[in-house]
Amino acid sequence: MTTFSFFGGKGGVGKTTVSSAFGLNCARAGLETLVVSTDPAHSTSDVFDQQFGDEPTPVSGYDNLHAMEIDPEEVVDEHLSDLRRQLGQQLSPAMVNEVSMQLEMAHQTPGAYEAALFDRFVEVMRTAEEYDRVVFDTSPTGGTLRLLALPEYLQQWIERLLHKREKSIEYYERAAIGEQQARKMMEGDPIIARLQERKETFEFAGETLRDDARFTFVLNPDDLSIRETRRALADIQEADLSVAGLVVNRLTPEPDPDEQGRGATYLRDRVETEQERLAEIRETLDPPVVAEIETRVREVKGSLLEDVAEEIELDP
Amino acid sequence: MTTFSFFGGKGGVGKTTVSSAFGLNCARAGLETLVVSTDPAHSTSDVFDQQFGDEPTPVSGYDNLHAMEIDPEEVVDEHLSDLRRQLGQQLSPAMVNEVSMQLEMAHQTPGAYEAALFDRFVEVMRTAEEYDRVVFDTSPTGGTLRLLALPEYLQQWIERLLHKREKSIEYYERAAIGEQQARKMMEGDPIIARLQERKETFEFAGETLRDDARFTFVLNPDDLSIRETRRALADIQEADLSVAGLVVNRLTPEPDPDEQGRGATYLRDRVETEQERLAEIRETLDPPVVAEIETRVREVKGSLLEDVAEEIELDP
Repeated sequence: MTTFSFFGGKGGVGKTTVSSAFGLNCARAGLETLVVSTDPAHSTSDVFDQQFGDEPTPVSGYDNLHAMEIDPEEVVDEHLSDLRRQLGQQLSPAMVNEVSMQLEMAHQTPGAYEAALFDRFVEVMRTAEEYDRVVFDTSPTGGTLRLLALPEYLQQWIERLLHKREKSIEYYERAAIGEQQARKMMEGDPIIARLQERKETFEFAGETLRDDARFTFVLNPDDLSIRETRRALADIQEADLSVAGLVVNRLTPEPDPDEQGRGATYLRDRVETEQERLAEIRETLDPPVVAEIETRVREVKGSLLEDVAEEIELDP
Repeated sequence: MTTFSFFGGKGGVGKTTVSSAFGLNCARAGLETLVVSTDPAHSTSDVFDQQFGDEPTPVSGYDNLHAMEIDPEEVVDEHLSDLRRQLGQQLSPAMVNEVSMQLEMAHQTPGAYEAALFDRFVEVMRTAEEYDRVVFDTSPTGGTLRLLALPEYLQQWIERLLHKREKSIEYYERAAIGEQQARKMMEGDPIIARLQERKETFEFAGETLRDDARFTFVLNPDDLSIRETRRALADIQEADLSVAGLVVNRLTPEPDPDEQGRGATYLRDRVETEQERLAEIRETLDPPVVAEIETRVREVKGSLLEDVAEEIELDP
């Protein structure tokens, strides 16, 4: 069975590092693993020093490890082309042009990006049966979190739309009693087929997220990060999803015990402040702290990633 | 005349600190200043150690300085109530119930939040004539940026909707030649009035953003932050908006020159890496670096904020 591990947390806390290191650990434990990034800045390619695209690609140097990066712009463009193609089958050419213009404008509005991304997410979940673990590097704060809570709402909505469409066809059929042509409308109705398909997608996404997904939050030992994580945890719980653990990233290293000077004082003050924050995290946030990772001087990649992976004791 | 200063940058780089410090400098220069935050974590209240709400409130301890925090959840709820009230005036009670249910579900979908926030943004801009400077603490990466690029697209869309509505009323009138009642429809049509109002809102927002707004990006001296800023700058330029400058925040302090030990080595390595990133920022990003701010051990608030304000030499 495939387990889906979502790594969340606000931008800049080190989600990509942590999720890549976790993916590495899973692969080393012998599990077929896929790391999926939706970060438009494409950090996964940086971490593994290898270019990834929209399809799963083996990560060089490691067995059982694949990675892919979903390009949000591309997803929106594809979504638009798909819709156009479907319209072409259902509408007259004159109507297609008109609707197509409206669609193009609609794709520039907020929400279009999230909707397209959601579809791509579900597609990846649906076609992942060859993997034991799929690791999503994504942000369940803000936009992405609303996405995860979406299936339930959208399901209700689709059901209403479906009901209305069926009613209106029913009226049409009744009005056309005796005409064989009209009586067959419901079966072949492309709108009902499409709505039914959407409904199944949302059901699948809701079930998978509730039953086969684990959420881990990455945060830094500072007030802002703690506050945002608290909010995100509340939202995740409201969506009936549960969080397995917290990873505290970017802890400042201590100076030597006998070290004196401006630098040592700065570092000791910082370590002290961070320890207070860490205590607050343990005391006031529900999920357990499953890993503490020290900050690095340079961006985590290559052998530094293997170092970090060893600091993560997350159950793969 | 009111100038609108937008501070952008990805989460966690210190936008709230920088925009609050900038607001403080504006107020001290004798300008009536309003700081507006859309951060759901409400950092502005933390920085000034004072609770702010949805209306401008004087900041204690400072002349000419006001602050407000837009609560995104509340904005969405109000938006929903407004729509319901308007519907009540235009539809039959039975229809209101049905549409109201659909609306409630629509408000859970992605985009609803952004749409509501956009309206509130514009409202603040429209009613800000008593201030010389309005400082927006917001993120022009991702969602907010798409918002700023929106007026132009939405304007085209609304114009098409308006055109369609006028056409359909025209046909209706033609079909009802002689009936006085029908001929007067266009003038009093509530949908045309509403579309016209939206059109003016988008025109105002587009003009104000182009003519009276300045954008400043806050970033940290690391790869990820540089990459995201590069992307955001490209998007902002595509939306025909210009960026006045870059603020590099969170620079690591140097140890004493003669300091030895693990701590001093760590800090020197870090400072060296950050200086490389700073050089990259100056060489590869267009807007000038207008301020460099050293990292603080604790969260910036109170007297620490005044310290930071002195490090910002941004032209108010």
